Amino acid sequence: MSEPFAAVDVIRAKRDRGRIPDEQIDWVIDAYTRGAVADEQMSALAMAILLNGMEPDELARWTAAMIASGSTLDLSGVTRPTTDKHSTGGVGDKITLPLAPLVAACGAAVPQLSGRGLGHTGGTLDKLESVPGWRASLTNDEFLRQLHDVGAVVCAAGDELAPADRKLYALRDVTATVESIPLIASSIMSKKIAEGSSTLVLDVKVGSGAFMKDLASALELAESMVSLGKAAGVRTSALLTDMNTPLGRTAGNALEVAESLEVLAGGGPVDVVELTLALAGEMLAGAGITDVDPADALRDGRAMDVWRRMISAQGGDPAAALPVAAEKHVVTAPASGVLARLDAYAVGVAAWRLGAGRARKEHPVSAGAGVVMLAKPGDPVTAGQPLLELYTDDPSRFDGALTALDGGYDVGATPPARPLIIERVTAV
Amino acid sequence: MSEPFAAVDVIRAKRDRGRIPDEQIDWVIDAYTRGAVADEQMSALAMAILLNGMEPDELARWTAAMIASGSTLDLSGVTRPTTDKHSTGGVGDKITLPLAPLVAACGAAVPQLSGRGLGHTGGTLDKLESVPGWRASLTNDEFLRQLHDVGAVVCAAGDELAPADRKLYALRDVTATVESIPLIASSIMSKKIAEGSSTLVLDVKVGSGAFMKDLASALELAESMVSLGKAAGVRTSALLTDMNTPLGRTAGNALEVAESLEVLAGGGPVDVVELTLALAGEMLAGAGITDVDPADALRDGRAMDVWRRMISAQGGDPAAALPVAAEKHVVTAPASGVLARLDAYAVGVAAWRLGAGRARKEHPVSAGAGVVMLAKPGDPVTAGQPLLELYTDDPSRFDGALTALDGGYDVGATPPARPLIIERVTAV
Repeated sequence: MSEPFAAVDVIRAKRDRGRIPDEQIDWVIDAYTRGAVADEQMSALAMAILLNGMEPDELARWTAAMIASGSTLDLSGVTRPTTDKHSTGGVGDKITLPLAPLVAACGAAVPQLSGRGLGHTGGTLDKLESVPGWRASLTNDEFLRQLHDVGAVVCAAGDELAPADRKLYALRDVTATVESIPLIASSIMSKKIAEGSSTLVLDVKVGSGAFMKDLASALELAESMVSLGKAAGVRTSALLTDMNTPLGRTAGNALEVAESLEVLAGGGPVDVVELTLALAGEMLAGAGITDVDPADALRDGRAMDVWRRMISAQGGDPAAALPVAAEKHVVTAPASGVLARLDAYAVGVAAWRLGAGRARKEHPVSAGAGVVMLAKPGDPVTAGQPLLELYTDDPSRFDGALTALDGGYDVGATPPARPLIIERVTAV
Repeated sequence: MSEPFAAVDVIRAKRDRGRIPDEQIDWVIDAYTRGAVADEQMSALAMAILLNGMEPDELARWTAAMIASGSTLDLSGVTRPTTDKHSTGGVGDKITLPLAPLVAACGAAVPQLSGRGLGHTGGTLDKLESVPGWRASLTNDEFLRQLHDVGAVVCAAGDELAPADRKLYALRDVTATVESIPLIASSIMSKKIAEGSSTLVLDVKVGSGAFMKDLASALELAESMVSLGKAAGVRTSALLTDMNTPLGRTAGNALEVAESLEVLAGGGPVDVVELTLALAGEMLAGAGITDVDPADALRDGRAMDVWRRMISAQGGDPAAALPVAAEKHVVTAPASGVLARLDAYAVGVAAWRLGAGRARKEHPVSAGAGVVMLAKPGDPVTAGQPLLELYTDDPSRFDGALTALDGGYDVGATPPARPLIIERVTAV
């Protein structure tokens, strides 16, 4: 053994509520990545972190060590200011699709490395893959060329970015150590910082369909991530946004692409438009672009132009028809009144069970499956009117989706008035 | 996967400060033993237990599951009442050597499965192996026959007793999860209960040379173990005894056998005799033998008779000369006065460095190496008089031993008056 530290000492420090010394943080992440610290040691450390927490500067060092476990993208050759967005995941959250081309149309460059869906939350790559021909994997050169030529790239992250995070995340998943705010914050931020963007805007979802169910946890996560961004020299802000209700009127892959196209065409659901413009404003402000109104770029087709070029550059046909599921089932309103509640988690699980999502990352998803919401909370409804349309390729899946929706919506009084954008968090 | 539970759910329950349901405790120990729960899952669970604790009935179930992971000894054919002793380990703790034959001489049967030393604490088997010819391994039949014929057996525990504990202990050692009172208590008690004795007396050491440094932790451990014994139907009591000072006047393998022979011959250091008689009294009372005074059995040679038969039965020659180390170094008193302090940990580390102990369980130990204490706290000393004799086969080891002893003793005022036997703990 020529290791400079022993894993038990690192674990013991955190177990006893101490701060792990900087050099030990650097070492333990590096040694874990190369296999010199065993999984059973890292999981004990992860549990100690989950239960005893981390100090802000300790977490910043931890995040830096995760970034240093791999390579970082060098965007210094990109002439436009770079700005990126990350959402912690929700139901119907297709915002990246209109947002990336919109922000590019306004003059910034958007290097957006995205992921796939898991469980009840959708993934941006799954959604884009419903566009015929579109591919998620790019080489570094293709990525940089498209960022330069088009201004927006949405693609899969390569294996070389923060490999410690990939290994640690898989470990946390089987050891009940996912739900730690420091570990979540460092996992997200290590990847995002490694992507090399100068500005980052975080969309931290809160509510039944989000990972963070309560406002206090979501706020803590947002503050932690914003401060990690600042520590790494990335201008970072966050919006806390509602995820008790699904975003927009669709949850599903091709269904969400179609809805995004409505937004890019100047229409679309008000909540999707509101959040797209709010996040675009944050990104552009961070990038120093203050003389452009993103709403104009939606209205006049400039954002749609970038979308077409972005899709084409990755082999997709922006004019091709999107896949449609073979089977449809309509859920009707049980009573007359106002739709008081439409639960994001229930809709997310229904879409997943219809085939839009997956339980394990190696599973395929259906492009056409999903849920269309014909009414949203606050809309008046009459008994028997269509409320939801369920789409699937396999009609045996309707039962499971309907079970998920059971108790997931109420017709009654007016809905609670929680705004879509709850709070804005910036570095202190 | 046809497992009835998922390890993440078990971990999550403890992580969130809940009680693990009984069936999940049974399952997780069994599944870990057979490899269906991974090391990284068990270490996360161990850390959650260390930080969040266990309820008494939860710990009793956990201990029962550890016992059920292997076989238990059936002592029902032994006609004498069975009684066993366990010490949590200290420096100079040779008590088992005179105690087992003494209690057998008084009419009980003592089935004592012992361990080897690690670090600064000695192990009973290492000590007995300094007797020429003596062997620690017995078959089950040999064990039972000797227990019947002689009344006392001190030998190595077989692999079939609580195999979950062996696997879990090795894992805890590399994941900084050793220092958990519930895990320590269940580790000790699962093995001791599996040994099948009807009565058990625990010698819980407290002080610098013990695993438990403070009285509160030692008391908590003692109470936890006593209650686990009760839950398993084993009459269990505990003595909390001092380990700030080494026991007796020797620390080392053959040196401690020689000292034990003095005790069995009716002499020996007062502290060793006091503790031997106190533990014998506990064991005999538990076994229902109240009409015999163990002090008599030391004075009249009955205990020594059993010792000779016990050693002979395991191939040892009780008349053979004990090994003596080749090299000796004398430490003298730095001043005149009273020996105020002789630190157990310092002496333990010195003996270890002289060759009496080992850093890893596969390392050999020296039979002759160790420390002889010519003065004990409270004894008057004059400057320059011999205080300690260090013995080793390898004179290059003296330096390390002297470094360990540096600051380990004081000559000055009178020593603190903590009694040897601090407290007695019985089931409530």
